[in-house]
Amino acid sequence: MSKSIVLTGITTTGTPHLGNYAGAIRPAINASKDERVRPFYFLADYHALIKCNEPARVKQSSLEIAATWLALGLDTENAVFYRQSDVPEILELTWMLTCVTAKGLMNRAHAYKAAVAENEETEGNDPDKGITMGLFSYPILMAADILMFNANKVPVGKDQIQHIEMARDIASRFNHIYGEHFVLPEAVLADNAATLLGLDGRKMSKSYNNTIPLFEPEKKLRKLINKIKTNSLEPGEPKDPEGCTLFGIYQAFANPHELDAIRTSYAEGIAWGEMKQVLFEKINDEIAPARERYEALLQAPEHIEEQLQLGAEKARAISRPFVQKLREAVGITPIVGS
Amino acid sequence: MSKSIVLTGITTTGTPHLGNYAGAIRPAINASKDERVRPFYFLADYHALIKCNEPARVKQSSLEIAATWLALGLDTENAVFYRQSDVPEILELTWMLTCVTAKGLMNRAHAYKAAVAENEETEGNDPDKGITMGLFSYPILMAADILMFNANKVPVGKDQIQHIEMARDIASRFNHIYGEHFVLPEAVLADNAATLLGLDGRKMSKSYNNTIPLFEPEKKLRKLINKIKTNSLEPGEPKDPEGCTLFGIYQAFANPHELDAIRTSYAEGIAWGEMKQVLFEKINDEIAPARERYEALLQAPEHIEEQLQLGAEKARAISRPFVQKLREAVGITPIVGS
Repeated sequence: MSKSIVLTGITTTGTPHLGNYAGAIRPAINASKDERVRPFYFLADYHALIKCNEPARVKQSSLEIAATWLALGLDTENAVFYRQSDVPEILELTWMLTCVTAKGLMNRAHAYKAAVAENEETEGNDPDKGITMGLFSYPILMAADILMFNANKVPVGKDQIQHIEMARDIASRFNHIYGEHFVLPEAVLADNAATLLGLDGRKMSKSYNNTIPLFEPEKKLRKLINKIKTNSLEPGEPKDPEGCTLFGIYQAFANPHELDAIRTSYAEGIAWGEMKQVLFEKINDEIAPARERYEALLQAPEHIEEQLQLGAEKARAISRPFVQKLREAVGITPIVGS
Repeated sequence: MSKSIVLTGITTTGTPHLGNYAGAIRPAINASKDERVRPFYFLADYHALIKCNEPARVKQSSLEIAATWLALGLDTENAVFYRQSDVPEILELTWMLTCVTAKGLMNRAHAYKAAVAENEETEGNDPDKGITMGLFSYPILMAADILMFNANKVPVGKDQIQHIEMARDIASRFNHIYGEHFVLPEAVLADNAATLLGLDGRKMSKSYNNTIPLFEPEKKLRKLINKIKTNSLEPGEPKDPEGCTLFGIYQAFANPHELDAIRTSYAEGIAWGEMKQVLFEKINDEIAPARERYEALLQAPEHIEEQLQLGAEKARAISRPFVQKLREAVGITPIVGS
């Protein structure tokens, strides 16, 4: 049991898109097959409530995300794949951590500060306008997610490094008061993770509404790829692959040899329409088998639920006794027995 | 089931004293025998973690408070008497409410503002110095305590009225977003509740370290009463009952007829020593039988635990299905089944 514990949560508010796939899902699925690693991957539905007040969307997103990860071949033998809300001990831990977390620490959280800065741009606005306690305190929930399973490594983007530092800070404080209970997690910066651009050329993100959903039916996928914005260079005119949305996406799917060939085609003035065709085929080849499994899973949601229940059992086999131990540590155990 | 639901939490950080008894415990025990009322009384140990980092003290206080309430004859048939941490659904609800609570609401909480004001007295101090997220966000935990059982009435002192208003505010917001799930609670101001003064003449409070523990052994009780500060008027000099600590405590235990007699004694110049003897006997007569039961209970803690477990069962018979319903409402239910 000296496997390194790696933990990743996926907020259940949207439909997985190509950017999620290349940047996070595909590497995580590959990691799930690494015997040196014990991955904890979870549907972060408690987190979803912070930004999404639409129950149907949270529910649909949970279904789509779970189906996506399973269809892509997640190794559920090695990985613990669960729904956050199936592990209510996480909220017990959240409260214990809340009691040792300095408010000043939360004041400095990037997401909160960005929201305040936005409010302050409008004169006379309350700096906390529209900010919920969910947004303000979610770094504590994240700390509980991580510390519950004593995760050693948390793969993050740059914007998430602060959250891991906060989790370390909160864990140290708890350890200092109540004894050594938590491993201090480390952020693992996924610095060569692919970041894809979307239909409009900005970063592909559901908040920009410019995404290509991962498992769109073939026809729809082709249609969306055809909609990707390009410049107006004519066929025959040499084109620059750098900064080109099509090339960027292609890069996330092609091997070095294929990439070289496409660079040459760009120099030779490949037509945008042709490049879109090449790109469509490249993507479709990679994802078509998984898409078939995805569609089958959506037809048999009970199989998805079964996998999540198995994951929850594995997670609670850890969280239940651990929270019991933490309850002892803080003094909220039964008077006799335990 | 048209009983009015009344809810009271007791933070498990101290030993019950005479002031707690006269001001809160005795009226609550009496209310527990009122057939028109369904009382929910709980050991607020999640709250205790906010201000107390000493596990042994939290544990000992839980024992003493539970033993006290049972020894005083709490009707556990009618009342639901439980330990907060035995109902972990309260923290699930806390998180759901956290996601709909405006941060601005918490900024305005009295306890938080008082802590900030104290920091600001020292120039150059961080206004949030030493303030934890527990202190900042506990009105949400209180709201969850209340809303979980759809309490109609919450008996409070003046300083607690704001918390009930906040619970109403948070409940309305949740109802507005997710449908009508919560009853809006009402504060019931216990305006004629006795407030006793302590050994030093200030309000009896564990924070002033001036209390007379309720179930001190007889000898110790007498000794503590003898330590109560009086003025230096000699025997034979007329004395003023108003503002007199001894008279104030006596008032909480005597009937009107006895009070009249003591007023006369004050006018006639009763010696402080004699008055202390009268007060000791009055208190001791009322609490001696309960003290005996209290001591017996401390010798048989498994009986206390059994009562708390029965209470937890009754509480969870409500909290489990209710949280299930709320999970459906916010969208974090299983994909199939439920």
